[in-house]
Amino acid sequence: MKMNEKQLAAEKSIEFIIDGMTLGLGTGSTVFFLVKKLAERVKQGLNIKCVSTSIQTSELAKSLGIIILNLNEVEVIDLTIDGADEVDRNLNGIKGGGGALLFEKIVAAASQKVIWIVDSSKYVSKLGKFPLPIEVIPFGSNHLLKRFTDSGFNPAIRKKGSEIFITDSGNRIIDLHLTEIEDSLKLEQEIKLIPGVVEVGLFNNIANMVIVGKGNSTEIISR
Amino acid sequence: MKMNEKQLAAEKSIEFIIDGMTLGLGTGSTVFFLVKKLAERVKQGLNIKCVSTSIQTSELAKSLGIIILNLNEVEVIDLTIDGADEVDRNLNGIKGGGGALLFEKIVAAASQKVIWIVDSSKYVSKLGKFPLPIEVIPFGSNHLLKRFTDSGFNPAIRKKGSEIFITDSGNRIIDLHLTEIEDSLKLEQEIKLIPGVVEVGLFNNIANMVIVGKGNSTEIISR
Repeated sequence: MKMNEKQLAAEKSIEFIIDGMTLGLGTGSTVFFLVKKLAERVKQGLNIKCVSTSIQTSELAKSLGIIILNLNEVEVIDLTIDGADEVDRNLNGIKGGGGALLFEKIVAAASQKVIWIVDSSKYVSKLGKFPLPIEVIPFGSNHLLKRFTDSGFNPAIRKKGSEIFITDSGNRIIDLHLTEIEDSLKLEQEIKLIPGVVEVGLFNNIANMVIVGKGNSTEIISR
Repeated sequence: MKMNEKQLAAEKSIEFIIDGMTLGLGTGSTVFFLVKKLAERVKQGLNIKCVSTSIQTSELAKSLGIIILNLNEVEVIDLTIDGADEVDRNLNGIKGGGGALLFEKIVAAASQKVIWIVDSSKYVSKLGKFPLPIEVIPFGSNHLLKRFTDSGFNPAIRKKGSEIFITDSGNRIIDLHLTEIEDSLKLEQEIKLIPGVVEVGLFNNIANMVIVGKGNSTEIISR
């Protein structure tokens, strides 16, 4: 069976997992393939502990026999493998399309090494075509919407059907439709400093390696 | 009856409330006196709408007949009156001793004008003797504790009796025992940018006026 690019990238990343590691597991459709393959390896005897970045990933992993620990019980994460919605040539990226950006960033911050696995459509020359997710406290979030509108950020509150989307922490997501991001580090800081903003979907200087699924093979870019 | 300094400052602040205003109400023992006095004025016919910064203040205000609106229903707050745990000569301050720093900062950010009411012990030449509250996401908060320890910030997770204290947003508070803060703007930004940090109890360039209760009178400092 022909593998798609997501699956190719996911299965390539397995090579960087060493027996005995504490592993961070991201969230999303590419990580889905990682967790499936990882479960096979665990059944074959691979000894790893895992920390998850979402209820979604925890449930999938547990259903396949992978033990998930609470991040607060873990001293350090050796390696985190996660997806991304966009990655640029400097390995900066946008994440949060699945709504798990907060836990994903917290897990990344606690990790020695971070690998992103993406299909070739995610590897871009400039960030910003993908809407930038901002996790915000519900209290007063209408004022943030107004503020982002005034800044020309074209914000939209994320919905799930007709309901407002709620994150695993009980917060909301505002997606900024920016088209192009000039200075991703500056933008991340500017937005995170606003009261009511919990996290910004810009992941700058976080990934050490990106594995891109491309046609029938993978390309590896390292920092 | 002799009024204490908190009550003096609180009652003085009433003079800055104009009929028709939308008012932000802070949280804490000094704001308690404000809400009590405000309720008297409302009974006498003062027409105001209020937004609250905590469940505690909402319950007190409602019990006294003051109507509390949701911040998301309000276009703009004309004036917010709040307490503070420490204020320096530049009107920068530390807030969050009562655990309401997040909503207090969000309300302040939505306000045209902010007045702090404090007793004289809170008006200091240098910030930092009062422990600096940091609101953090529970997920991975042990890693933040370690990070703050490594930075020499002497952190302690806030407890209520033997239980971990939980904020109105379901988060935790880490109090940093710093003794002295050199550059409060730099410190606020440095800490807020850490993944998992929701808000920092440093309120820089927020208060327009501070009313200090001092002996039998009040002193007003404006920016």
